[in-house]
Amino acid sequence: MDKLEQIKAQLQKFADDRDWDQFHSPKNLSMALSVEASELVECFQWLTEEQSQNLSPEQLSAVKDEMADVQIYLLRLATKLNVNMVEAVNQKIKKNALKYPIDKVKGSAKKYTEYEQPGLKKGEE
Amino acid sequence: MDKLEQIKAQLQKFADDRDWDQFHSPKNLSMALSVEASELVECFQWLTEEQSQNLSPEQLSAVKDEMADVQIYLLRLATKLNVNMVEAVNQKIKKNALKYPIDKVKGSAKKYTEYEQPGLKKGEE
Amino acid sequence: MDKLEQIKAQLQKFADDRDWDQFHSPKNLSMALSVEASELVECFQWLTEEQSQNLSPEQLSAVKDEMADVQIYLLRLATKLNVNMVEAVNQKIKKNALKYPIDKVKGSAKKYTEYEQPGLKKGEE
Amino acid sequence: MDKLEQIKAQLQKFADDRDWDQFHSPKNLSMALSVEASELVECFQWLTEEQSQNLSPEQLSAVKDEMADVQIYLLRLATKLNVNMVEAVNQKIKKNALKYPIDKVKGSAKKYTEYEQPGLKKGEE
Repeated sequence: MDKLEQIKAQLQKFADDRDWDQFHSPKNLSMALSVEASELVECFQWLTEEQSQNLSPEQLSAVKDEMADVQIYLLRLATKLNVNMVEAVNQKIKKNALKYPIDKVKGSAKKYTEYEQPGLKKGEE
Repeated sequence: MDKLEQIKAQLQKFADDRDWDQFHSPKNLSMALSVEASELVECFQWLTEEQSQNLSPEQLSAVKDEMADVQIYLLRLATKLNVNMVEAVNQKIKKNALKYPIDKVKGSAKKYTEYEQPGLKKGEE
Repeated sequence: MDKLEQIKAQLQKFADDRDWDQFHSPKNLSMALSVEASELVECFQWLTEEQSQNLSPEQLSAVKDEMADVQIYLLRLATKLNVNMVEAVNQKIKKNALKYPIDKVKGSAKKYTEYEQPGLKKGEE
Repeated sequence: MDKLEQIKAQLQKFADDRDWDQFHSPKNLSMALSVEASELVECFQWLTEEQSQNLSPEQLSAVKDEMADVQIYLLRLATKLNVNMVEAVNQKIKKNALKYPIDKVKGSAKKYTEYEQPGLKKGEE
């Protein structure tokens, strides 16, 4: 069995053992996932970009834990919605390749950030 | 090679092809990840919990795309910080098992939600 | 002087007294604001909608603190970007009135949630 | 009447006119608020801190709209939970003054960021 599928089974048992499954609606899991994503952001909020590339062992350990929490809730949600994450990612990478053609977006920060501007990204071109 | 490692290599190539690596500091990637997590929340914000368990094919497809985006930025960050996600998750599950012992947290919503109250969760017991 | 402007002045002094102004770039403040918004979400993530309408005094007190933190970072950002929040909100309400005309969106949850679907909301109609 | 109270009344009418009040449980409003906070983060995610201090008129206009959206949902939540934001902020500023005494936190980025480390901030000192 795939490693991610193994983890999904483990997490299901973890929730079952604690009677937590009842709280794990997709709506609630999306909230919990975004809370964990913000705890990850919190690790970086007052660091410079350069500092974020040179974390101390303690900082890296805290960051790893938050990354794991995001992954855990993502896999819980995947279980609930019957989603195979590897397949979903592969499909999305194909979509992104069409959305961001190399010759259109390659290059300067300016081009990149403009391409990502709210107005543009939301399909309001 | 592990499937997640394969995807990480694919995403690195995707970024390299577009000269985007320069924007992918851990700080920035944590921001992008949390933005995608919120796009996932957006799919569920006006749905009831029950509706969130019964998505239409269109809704599920939108949700899957957002889940994939979260996974993609998480793997980008894992590449940048040299983190193995499967190992990080396994370690975190062990920590969580100690933090939430079955006999202490099993049972009613009340106990569970109290256990998760800000004051308690932050280790202020 | 307007109450919000008074608070902005107080917060500026608070940051100056602690030499924190150097960390308060708009980028960093947006991160801190979103982290506080997630701490607010955390208060509600395992509650039902009904429970969220009937908070205990302790829960309400925790929620109030998180709401205050969101307001504080929003006002810090407003100071840094020279934005008058009352004006900005009044302008946005006018925009929203055009975007969501009563006769088009009034009524059932179904209409409302469809109107808020990612594809539609992003202006891709 | 206070300006914020005026806006709260306006927003209540806006929701009533559209029959949206039924969707505005505190739980759902916290989700919507955090989604708007992330749309604000999205404006800054690929900018350097310096660029975030020198926004173009178009960028500033987009940022202002997102700030207004955050303020709007915060005031909707304040209406639903009967919270006076000015009072809540004033109380929180007093708490923060005790939590972050000038002589303890003033000074270097290092001290500041350490003080804000997850472990410390969560009251685990």
